[in-house]
Amino acid sequence: MQYAVSLEKLIEQFQKLPSVGLKSAQRMAYHILSLPEEEVKAFADAVVNAKKNIHYCAVCCDFTDEELCSVCKSDKRDKGTICVVEESKDVVAIEKTGEYFGTYHVLHGRLSPVKKIGADDIMIKPLLERFKDGEVSEVIMATNPNIEGEATAMYIARLLKPFGVKVTRLAYGIPVGADLEFADDMTLRRAIEGRKEF
Amino acid sequence: MQYAVSLEKLIEQFQKLPSVGLKSAQRMAYHILSLPEEEVKAFADAVVNAKKNIHYCAVCCDFTDEELCSVCKSDKRDKGTICVVEESKDVVAIEKTGEYFGTYHVLHGRLSPVKKIGADDIMIKPLLERFKDGEVSEVIMATNPNIEGEATAMYIARLLKPFGVKVTRLAYGIPVGADLEFADDMTLRRAIEGRKEF
Repeated sequence: MQYAVSLEKLIEQFQKLPSVGLKSAQRMAYHILSLPEEEVKAFADAVVNAKKNIHYCAVCCDFTDEELCSVCKSDKRDKGTICVVEESKDVVAIEKTGEYFGTYHVLHGRLSPVKKIGADDIMIKPLLERFKDGEVSEVIMATNPNIEGEATAMYIARLLKPFGVKVTRLAYGIPVGADLEFADDMTLRRAIEGRKEF
Repeated sequence: MQYAVSLEKLIEQFQKLPSVGLKSAQRMAYHILSLPEEEVKAFADAVVNAKKNIHYCAVCCDFTDEELCSVCKSDKRDKGTICVVEESKDVVAIEKTGEYFGTYHVLHGRLSPVKKIGADDIMIKPLLERFKDGEVSEVIMATNPNIEGEATAMYIARLLKPFGVKVTRLAYGIPVGADLEFADDMTLRRAIEGRKEF
């Protein structure tokens, strides 16, 4: 006994989504079958439309369906500060803090010699473009705190030197609410290095 | 800052899938954006086609995209035995054992006074139709071992009495590979009741 062909295909498609296994894919497929036709159509349209309408913001390369993303478009944001992140979801995470009022630059990846991702494969060139008019005074490197993120940040920092802007890095340290005893060596070492006076 | 409209909509749609939270929905949406256009189209098509092509098998009410499902169509299956299950996925589970050669009947639900699901809301009528020609000799009730499944099984068993067929129920007992100490009272009691000689 096999699944009906169309059902099998749908399960296969769901299984391609990140962290969806066979069981979840089955559950999702059956869920789709249980929906009224309009809702299924709305779902499929949302998928197609997102792919069709979403592209990179002309300035910061974040995802948008207009020419500029909502941050770049806003006149309430400080255009003199750029926070460089690896992925669009990092923008969402930083925006949630509600404490950053500069702009972003989304690299859409990180340098990785192992995976053969070089400087031309991520959005470094459009970042450099943004320094041409001398408006930018600070760049905050907010790539991930791992080897590849670190290397990417250092590479970009070096490229930015000629522009004479201040380049900073997010602070390392122990995460708020964490237990000291479970912090790894490296994090603790960085936390001690970066200690601050009360 | 908000998401781009099309992206927001896609995330919302993914969140409607069973056991998909905001974080997973975001990950899925970004995954869709990262795919080439053909693949996104294939995904959306699979969704729409499944809903369009899949309907209930004319005999057993399982999902199929032909008139009869693969089990009802096969001449290797014993048409004299019907295994009654709540959902299509239960058919998949039983088929996986490779030890059942009869046919199925999918109710697409269970009786539930609380949720106001009565006999007419699930596929009981098509089940009764199958007894008209007197070919069926045994019905195995394989609804879920909980109050609603139990009640559904008992209700159907009573309806089947006039047809004079044998009605059986899946055996209760301790699951294979489980630890006795963690079995609940009810299961253990049923396991003792149903004990078998070596």
